[in-house]
Amino acid sequence: MPSFTVFKGHESGNLVKSTTTKPDELTEDYVLLRVTASGLCGTDLHFRHTDMVLGHEGVGIVEAVGPQARYLQKGDRVGWGYEVDSCGHCAECLRGDEVFCSEGQKYSETNFDQGSFASHAIWRESWVHKIPDTLSDVAAAPLQCGGGTVFQALQGIKPTETVGILGIGGLGHLAIQFAAKMGCRVVVLSGSERKREEALRLGAHEFIATKGATALSVSSRLDRLLVTAAVPPDWNLLIPILAPRAAIYPLTVNMGNFSIPYMALISRGIHVVGSQVPARAIHKEMLEFAALHHIEPITETFPMTEEKITEAMDKLDRGEVYYRAVLIPQ
Amino acid sequence: MPSFTVFKGHESGNLVKSTTTKPDELTEDYVLLRVTASGLCGTDLHFRHTDMVLGHEGVGIVEAVGPQARYLQKGDRVGWGYEVDSCGHCAECLRGDEVFCSEGQKYSETNFDQGSFASHAIWRESWVHKIPDTLSDVAAAPLQCGGGTVFQALQGIKPTETVGILGIGGLGHLAIQFAAKMGCRVVVLSGSERKREEALRLGAHEFIATKGATALSVSSRLDRLLVTAAVPPDWNLLIPILAPRAAIYPLTVNMGNFSIPYMALISRGIHVVGSQVPARAIHKEMLEFAALHHIEPITETFPMTEEKITEAMDKLDRGEVYYRAVLIPQ
Repeated sequence: MPSFTVFKGHESGNLVKSTTTKPDELTEDYVLLRVTASGLCGTDLHFRHTDMVLGHEGVGIVEAVGPQARYLQKGDRVGWGYEVDSCGHCAECLRGDEVFCSEGQKYSETNFDQGSFASHAIWRESWVHKIPDTLSDVAAAPLQCGGGTVFQALQGIKPTETVGILGIGGLGHLAIQFAAKMGCRVVVLSGSERKREEALRLGAHEFIATKGATALSVSSRLDRLLVTAAVPPDWNLLIPILAPRAAIYPLTVNMGNFSIPYMALISRGIHVVGSQVPARAIHKEMLEFAALHHIEPITETFPMTEEKITEAMDKLDRGEVYYRAVLIPQ
Repeated sequence: MPSFTVFKGHESGNLVKSTTTKPDELTEDYVLLRVTASGLCGTDLHFRHTDMVLGHEGVGIVEAVGPQARYLQKGDRVGWGYEVDSCGHCAECLRGDEVFCSEGQKYSETNFDQGSFASHAIWRESWVHKIPDTLSDVAAAPLQCGGGTVFQALQGIKPTETVGILGIGGLGHLAIQFAAKMGCRVVVLSGSERKREEALRLGAHEFIATKGATALSVSSRLDRLLVTAAVPPDWNLLIPILAPRAAIYPLTVNMGNFSIPYMALISRGIHVVGSQVPARAIHKEMLEFAALHHIEPITETFPMTEEKITEAMDKLDRGEVYYRAVLIPQ
């Protein structure tokens, strides 16, 4: 039986190489991709002990298309992210909100035998996204989840608004670039002064070190705050620099409760907005916007081998990746 | 010196009658009102031990106008609510969001010598609202804060959405009526079955008793949920009946933290929206909408005397008012 290489989580926490069967012929609108780069996302760490193929920030070249494929052909360069299929019939799908389809096929929930830590993958044509020519494979990979997540959290923003980005890491360093290119005043909040220069270089207009601060001051109060830091912030410190009706986007996955002082929420009209990866229409806009404005992740590349993936995951787990790891199939 | 009667909070918790000085002549655009009815709101209970004039759901008749008043004249019937002035110059005021003006004059924060528990009051012309003829004084009073609060929490709703109302009391029974008249499918959640008939009579399409339930079912998941119950709900019970991207409006004042499971917030795209009384433009729309659709509070009236106000407050504190107390000056 033909097959391709995949890398799976394992109870040891060390990645193991395996194979997934490749059908003799593609059916329907499925397309076969040869993976050229895969981002490593914080979410992958949650599944390193699980027997499933990891990775959901994939970039690849179309090698073959199924009989019902209409738009892609061999040689096209595409990416895919967290969601790879949905029902197409429910209200959420019909209004273009397919990330909320209750039958949506998402990473870690279905398709355990496929992922972007692999030599190949087979997905529906309508669930992979053409990558603009000016984005390299390595640059495009982290945009498929990390880039999409911050771009989604900036939906509906006005260019005249002030955006706060709390935390500079895989998500934060992309959020700074997207918000700045949208015309917004960008205020970065980070623990120490260490990343000040880099934040400003990425497009931030203002940098605030929060460690040990008892009060913060800002040139313009924040209309929107993207929380990308791993640790929940001290809301009593942050609320005074939020504008009335400010929207808070908690983007870091956390298993507990999100908590915020009740009176501030009501009296200042604060919105807390749960937000995840974007629907496909917005995912495609994100890629075009990134290409137009030369928005690219800062990456560290690792060869896609058992040993090196595990090394990259350990490094990400220690918070030492600068800023997004990308795996390259060998 | 001329004066008028007012009723103030007192350290004993029993209301006391007092007087506030009335200027010999009105200045600027101030208007003198003779109070004809005042709602009693849950917020008033927080200040019954404070030495200030209580009441912020006022209705009255204009008795005299200041030299710069332009729109009102003697005999006009008007109401006022939680906010009675703002700076007029800040970004929030300029965009019609004056409830977030940092210099806004609000009940319990300024104007301690005036309130709606009084024979008269003096406010700026632009901060009182003409009352449509078809609304009685008694019906109009609770709309000035309670009605405004639920109407604000329904801003931006689509008539095709499903609205959940958690709790049937002063706010909830108005929210049911407003949401139903906006065309929404209205689902009422209450502890017991006791208020089922009344909820349906007020316009609800569905009624769910939550006490003891381990799972809820609903004909259509809730796009928006107004929380008007005094006790924070069990989110694990409610989240499964929320639609993707549902908006939760916590309307009951609470001194602690608002907490909700983090993963549900993100994966279901839930919005938590802090909301309070509306700005004036929306307050006026609310009064017109109520008049057009015959939306009226269910009220219990009490004579506005020391003894009877205290009695009404005690009854409200016990949760026994059906559904909004209105005080009538004697």
